Amino acid sequence: MKEFKSLLPYDKALEIVKVHSKEFDSESIDLHDSLDRVLSEDIVSPVDSPSFDRSAMDGYAVQARDTFSISEGSHVTLEIIDSITAGKVSSKEVVSGTAAEIMTGAMIPKGADSVVMQEFTERDNDKVRIYKKVFPYLHVSRKGEDIREGNLILKKGTIISSEHLSLLKSLGIKNILVKKKPRVSIIVTGDELVKDTEKIEKGKIVDSNSIMLSSLSKKSFCEVAHQFLVADEKDEILKTINLSKKDSDIILITGGSSFGKKDFLPKIIDNILFHGVTIKPGKPIGFSFQDFPIFIMSGYPVASFVQFYLFVVPYLENILKTKIQKSVELTFSQNYSSELGRLEFVRCILENNEIFPIRLSGSGVISSISSSTGYVLINENIEGINKGEKSRFYYYL
Amino acid sequence: MKEFKSLLPYDKALEIVKVHSKEFDSESIDLHDSLDRVLSEDIVSPVDSPSFDRSAMDGYAVQARDTFSISEGSHVTLEIIDSITAGKVSSKEVVSGTAAEIMTGAMIPKGADSVVMQEFTERDNDKVRIYKKVFPYLHVSRKGEDIREGNLILKKGTIISSEHLSLLKSLGIKNILVKKKPRVSIIVTGDELVKDTEKIEKGKIVDSNSIMLSSLSKKSFCEVAHQFLVADEKDEILKTINLSKKDSDIILITGGSSFGKKDFLPKIIDNILFHGVTIKPGKPIGFSFQDFPIFIMSGYPVASFVQFYLFVVPYLENILKTKIQKSVELTFSQNYSSELGRLEFVRCILENNEIFPIRLSGSGVISSISSSTGYVLINENIEGINKGEKSRFYYYL
Repeated sequence: MKEFKSLLPYDKALEIVKVHSKEFDSESIDLHDSLDRVLSEDIVSPVDSPSFDRSAMDGYAVQARDTFSISEGSHVTLEIIDSITAGKVSSKEVVSGTAAEIMTGAMIPKGADSVVMQEFTERDNDKVRIYKKVFPYLHVSRKGEDIREGNLILKKGTIISSEHLSLLKSLGIKNILVKKKPRVSIIVTGDELVKDTEKIEKGKIVDSNSIMLSSLSKKSFCEVAHQFLVADEKDEILKTINLSKKDSDIILITGGSSFGKKDFLPKIIDNILFHGVTIKPGKPIGFSFQDFPIFIMSGYPVASFVQFYLFVVPYLENILKTKIQKSVELTFSQNYSSELGRLEFVRCILENNEIFPIRLSGSGVISSISSSTGYVLINENIEGINKGEKSRFYYYL
Repeated sequence: MKEFKSLLPYDKALEIVKVHSKEFDSESIDLHDSLDRVLSEDIVSPVDSPSFDRSAMDGYAVQARDTFSISEGSHVTLEIIDSITAGKVSSKEVVSGTAAEIMTGAMIPKGADSVVMQEFTERDNDKVRIYKKVFPYLHVSRKGEDIREGNLILKKGTIISSEHLSLLKSLGIKNILVKKKPRVSIIVTGDELVKDTEKIEKGKIVDSNSIMLSSLSKKSFCEVAHQFLVADEKDEILKTINLSKKDSDIILITGGSSFGKKDFLPKIIDNILFHGVTIKPGKPIGFSFQDFPIFIMSGYPVASFVQFYLFVVPYLENILKTKIQKSVELTFSQNYSSELGRLEFVRCILENNEIFPIRLSGSGVISSISSSTGYVLINENIEGINKGEKSRFYYYL
């Protein structure tokens, strides 16, 4: 009769994982390829933005002091010396008594300091009547007013989004340093597993862990190096681990992490740092470190799903120096009791801005994860959550 | 002097966009390629899950009634007739007085109806002493207990995630019907724009709209068919639109949508259904429909960013029959006043579980979007939001 002699508290286990994580390598890539990549440097602006004083309106570029005499009902008349569209540079200089017609985005001509909006003007051939007083720099987007050269614009760890791309592009940045994608190998073990349903015999089940763990890895900024399905045979498993080592940064191996007859993974893998943690579900998680980490996960998809979120995601966040998960604090919709001594991963949905637990348990109940959209963690030292209590809801990736 | 004669209320404009949206085509694809695709059919389970009664524990499969006589301190002894690991089918039948050793996940043998956990047993060669009473189906995951054949498991419109893949795979589903990716062409116009900074002359700026709109499109389940940068020339623009039409489902064209000298897009494009909407920023949005939609967007990145969220995203949600944006209701951190008569797109961040507005305005201020992570909409008929008021925060894509 074997059982987990003692389960390691989740915090302690997580600490061991973190101690064995070191910052991952970076690579410089073209900005156009960088959507959803993890920035691995602070970026300071190499230029001012805007890079020149430009008009924020369609109208007339003038010297503001030429308009100071205008009062309600009066106007001044200025001579139009040029017409400047966006992208063009005027060779003329606006001096007192003159104005240049100007379009939004165009460079303010020499001598002018402000723009009168078109709607407060009236054109008469080469002259324009100005009906409104302006002050210096009105309707002028000044050089550097948005961003100054040397300003910190994006922090290391930022996940590059559409709006960051626009910003970086506008500042003339062509390449950025991002974290390389950790290469994950997924080894699924079990005599009962088959790759596809065609070959299914009685008593067998289809491997649904590979497709899940590989997509979770991709969502966590990794690439999948290998996927193997291996029988419960020691030599075969060790051979596969050795094969994967060559070009992987992380190995996820599922099955055989509990204490059944064939559950020998933790026995055959060297340097096991922990095995069995106070979480529910997913207790039989194991972790080995041999230059790189091996996460020994459950064969049950629900358990390995939970283990991925509770161990692999924090590991990746640590080596990539970023936040992978989004979360938000909301109120819990009902009383929910949990087991003392276990950190519970409660599958939940958001509804009417409250957190609803999906009341299905068991590692085999895969519909409980596919019908939830995120989770709440209940600490091992409390007995549950009360209706109306604030909880942190983590969105699934 | 030209201005928007009258701005169309946002709701009315959105209604016009929606009237011109019809459900998009579907395609059948391999499950392994379907992460982040939009499901376009309800999926019902073709099988029961589990597909057979299986053991949820390591232990002994027995007939529960053989254990009914056990009381505290007593036991019964059964003859072990087989040892069943996961993936194997026993040819033996458990009858009264016998038991089969069984591993987690293995098929329950004929005759047995329950499993005694290993820790409540003691083995003695071919016999096992059972120390605990069990009732029928204890520690048995019954056929169909998670999902029954014919159960609705995923709804049309679901965005396929890692956990859905695992579920579908486990049910033996190989192909699913998803929405095709709408092909988006992005046409950026403006004499002042250059593709890259190398060629930059005074008064010119780099086009940062293409990279932003193409990545927003990809994040919205589209693919980018073409990206064009065109000068402010009528013939050139019309030629480019015609060229794009051939293999695009949607055209986004930026620049020249206001009323400057060169802002002729709404004048040269046929069948304009609206131009000028009560939103801030982004007012000069135009919309044309000619078998397919043309969104006429601003040249300023902030304005076109907002227009994408307020018009293109709802259009795509309507044709793809899905929700593209995530949102959550939280309290606003401070008083924020807005202009009556304009729907304001307030760039915000979440901090300490409250919504903080980024107080930078102006369509040119691109740092205001890159430093925010989402937005709140303030209706045109109110003058702002009060500190502590509940607001809906939409996460950026």
